[in-house]
Amino acid sequence: MSLKPSISKGTKDYLPNDLGKRNYLKKILRETFEIFGFLPIETPSFERIETLTGKYGENGDRLIFKILNSGDKLKKADIKSFVDKDLGKFSNSLSEKALRYDLTVPLARFVSQHRNEINFPFRRYQIQNVWRADRPQKGRFQEFLQCDVDILGNRSILQEVEIILMCEYIFSKLNLKNISVNINHRKILEGIAILIGAKDKFSLLTSSLDKLEKIGKNGVIKDLKTHGFIKKSIDSLIPFLEIKGDFKSKIDFLSTKLKEIEVANQGLIELSSIHDKITKHKLSSVEINFDITLARGLDYYTGIILEVLPAEDEFDFGSIAGGGRYDNLTDFFGLRETSGFGISFGFDRIYLILEKLKLFPKDLLKSSKVMFVNFDEHIAQDCLQTIISLREKGVSCEIYPTKSKLKKQLDYANQREIPFVVMIGPDEYSKKEFIIKNMETGNQSVFKTKNLIGEVMKLI
Amino acid sequence: MSLKPSISKGTKDYLPNDLGKRNYLKKILRETFEIFGFLPIETPSFERIETLTGKYGENGDRLIFKILNSGDKLKKADIKSFVDKDLGKFSNSLSEKALRYDLTVPLARFVSQHRNEINFPFRRYQIQNVWRADRPQKGRFQEFLQCDVDILGNRSILQEVEIILMCEYIFSKLNLKNISVNINHRKILEGIAILIGAKDKFSLLTSSLDKLEKIGKNGVIKDLKTHGFIKKSIDSLIPFLEIKGDFKSKIDFLSTKLKEIEVANQGLIELSSIHDKITKHKLSSVEINFDITLARGLDYYTGIILEVLPAEDEFDFGSIAGGGRYDNLTDFFGLRETSGFGISFGFDRIYLILEKLKLFPKDLLKSSKVMFVNFDEHIAQDCLQTIISLREKGVSCEIYPTKSKLKKQLDYANQREIPFVVMIGPDEYSKKEFIIKNMETGNQSVFKTKNLIGEVMKLI
Repeated sequence: MSLKPSISKGTKDYLPNDLGKRNYLKKILRETFEIFGFLPIETPSFERIETLTGKYGENGDRLIFKILNSGDKLKKADIKSFVDKDLGKFSNSLSEKALRYDLTVPLARFVSQHRNEINFPFRRYQIQNVWRADRPQKGRFQEFLQCDVDILGNRSILQEVEIILMCEYIFSKLNLKNISVNINHRKILEGIAILIGAKDKFSLLTSSLDKLEKIGKNGVIKDLKTHGFIKKSIDSLIPFLEIKGDFKSKIDFLSTKLKEIEVANQGLIELSSIHDKITKHKLSSVEINFDITLARGLDYYTGIILEVLPAEDEFDFGSIAGGGRYDNLTDFFGLRETSGFGISFGFDRIYLILEKLKLFPKDLLKSSKVMFVNFDEHIAQDCLQTIISLREKGVSCEIYPTKSKLKKQLDYANQREIPFVVMIGPDEYSKKEFIIKNMETGNQSVFKTKNLIGEVMKLI
Repeated sequence: MSLKPSISKGTKDYLPNDLGKRNYLKKILRETFEIFGFLPIETPSFERIETLTGKYGENGDRLIFKILNSGDKLKKADIKSFVDKDLGKFSNSLSEKALRYDLTVPLARFVSQHRNEINFPFRRYQIQNVWRADRPQKGRFQEFLQCDVDILGNRSILQEVEIILMCEYIFSKLNLKNISVNINHRKILEGIAILIGAKDKFSLLTSSLDKLEKIGKNGVIKDLKTHGFIKKSIDSLIPFLEIKGDFKSKIDFLSTKLKEIEVANQGLIELSSIHDKITKHKLSSVEINFDITLARGLDYYTGIILEVLPAEDEFDFGSIAGGGRYDNLTDFFGLRETSGFGISFGFDRIYLILEKLKLFPKDLLKSSKVMFVNFDEHIAQDCLQTIISLREKGVSCEIYPTKSKLKKQLDYANQREIPFVVMIGPDEYSKKEFIIKNMETGNQSVFKTKNLIGEVMKLI
């Protein structure tokens, strides 16, 4: 009985051509991170469950993939919870570890655990997969690559500035223009919540605000009503929903509105200072906007938050990078006073954009440069010795494994985009000669076998 | 309440220094694979459970990490099986997907699924993690990197020869000597099983044989007795347990012993032919041995099997690479006649050996080349503009994020192994000068700020 070969939904296979492009993008990101002075780390794919839960908000926690206990540990299954229909508790009794949901919480765990082995401020980058039990959709997979940079152990907003400069650097390298870096500050949002008397409904407020662009002012008002916001709160929120103008004028408007709210003022000062610093430099690929509705779903952010969006509306999958300042994340692991700021680049979404805009360079597939045709076992043995020498010189080459028909062998070389083919048939062999064929032009030349390596080296 | 930061047992964090070395090793492997004409693919971390199970033998199946169903799917939990103490069935009702156990079965699934998008013979390499619920021990983790090369769609033993040549290439590059490539053939083992009348106990026989080096001849005999092998079978096996001599003489001995057994003859001819072909080339790092006790635990092998062992006995974790010929693996997925041969390099074990023998080059950590000291916010802003220009020229650099004490900033540069530090204090700033300090020698020089980029470029 055979099985129809298929993969789990929300996952993806990558063929050689895909990987040529993925490795190109990965290389640009990695090189940029290193040019900005970041060092690599890697953490395990799965962590203890208690490391991950409780940091991503309720919605995030539900999307964590858990690993099923095996062997005797499975005997601990809490059947009573199942019978009581408490699936959460049942699930917890079946698992002790889970696949990482992002790279930030594992980083906080890492930094806390290795605090004596690393130097603060700790500038690290990390390029690894994360997993989310999200409903698969366009540009969103259950397994995807995240590329994170973070600096921990320092509160300077120079870090926010550096990360925005990094966005400029990366998107310039990729030839992507008109990238928006939308920024906001959690403390401004907190200030608004305090002002309208809805401090206890902070996350409901921010998740409504987040929908402003999609559902409009009236949509947000309706949403808030359903969530039990009183009329007075909603009325005092309306001016914030109608906010307009450039970065500076938004700051001015909010400074007036929120001047009595200490926490909001801190946020406005930071935001304003970042804007000043950034605009001193010439940016050609990104522009920064102040987006009062930006909230970011994750619970751990405490300061500046940002989201990076592509220029074209047709990419309907939202942001291509996002990040923020988190002051207390390492507190969970007993390491205090270690504020961090970081950004996560959504590799797969950036990939989709480069693909759609045809911005990948050509010839990213690294095929063999030379294929030796296989005429018979004895000659093949001789060819192999030549191949060994060519490989020693760094030339990527191969021999067709069986003495199949010439056409079949040449077809293979063609499909694999191998530019040159060496042929030593019995005739050539007896004359101590070989033929080299340029697969693009079809041209063939004959040389003496003793010059084979030299002639091949000339061509590639 | 804070949590003691720790990782799940059997997993590992990698710090920047580790990754400098890991990326070096990964690069050598990847470049070798490409020089040998292999193309990269990647498959998802988890596969549908039915894709994985039933291919690794009973022991392998038990070590597969399953992913717990979430949401409504958890309601399908088969509580009756739990009550009946059938934990296997209970476990199956809780999971639909599992982390990959190796890269070979996913490859077979991949090749079957994408048969119309790829060209045969398909030479692919794959460098990805695999997961096994093994008891963690030295050199053995629950998550580890495998580096596989396989050729599918061709039966030529030239592929076996090529892979052994690849071992030679890799271990020479790594300066590892006296590497043993032990080879055997499943069909020879089958032949022995037939000869001694124990065809139905094939896997018991091979798993006993596999222990010969560890428990000796008498140990194996005892082991076989416990597993119900009759005396006649055991007696006819004894000459095979006592086999001695070089490759050729073992082949001769077995050819005589097994001459009536057709299947064994095929194996002996192949093995002998591989030996002939390989010994035509000069090998400096590896030597091939015929090891009659080598069985390899995986069910899917049908022909040549091989295992690569390091020279020194002190590395008590067994093989550093292993592989074999599998004729029918893609049959599971409905693709017939697609014999494959491949090898898997155990990245972490090779790493441990290089580490122990101090074979990693120095300076693999890619820190910033230059750090700018932060004296005050205003000057820092100017430095940032210079840093932007240096980065454009590919120079890795950073500025310390806050105006901390000079000693603290220099200590950071030291610990991070940053070779040069640029200092522009208020004095220098007013004189339009800067100081550059060589962190290794301690030497300082003063230059005009307008020449900063040029002076830095001279140094690095």
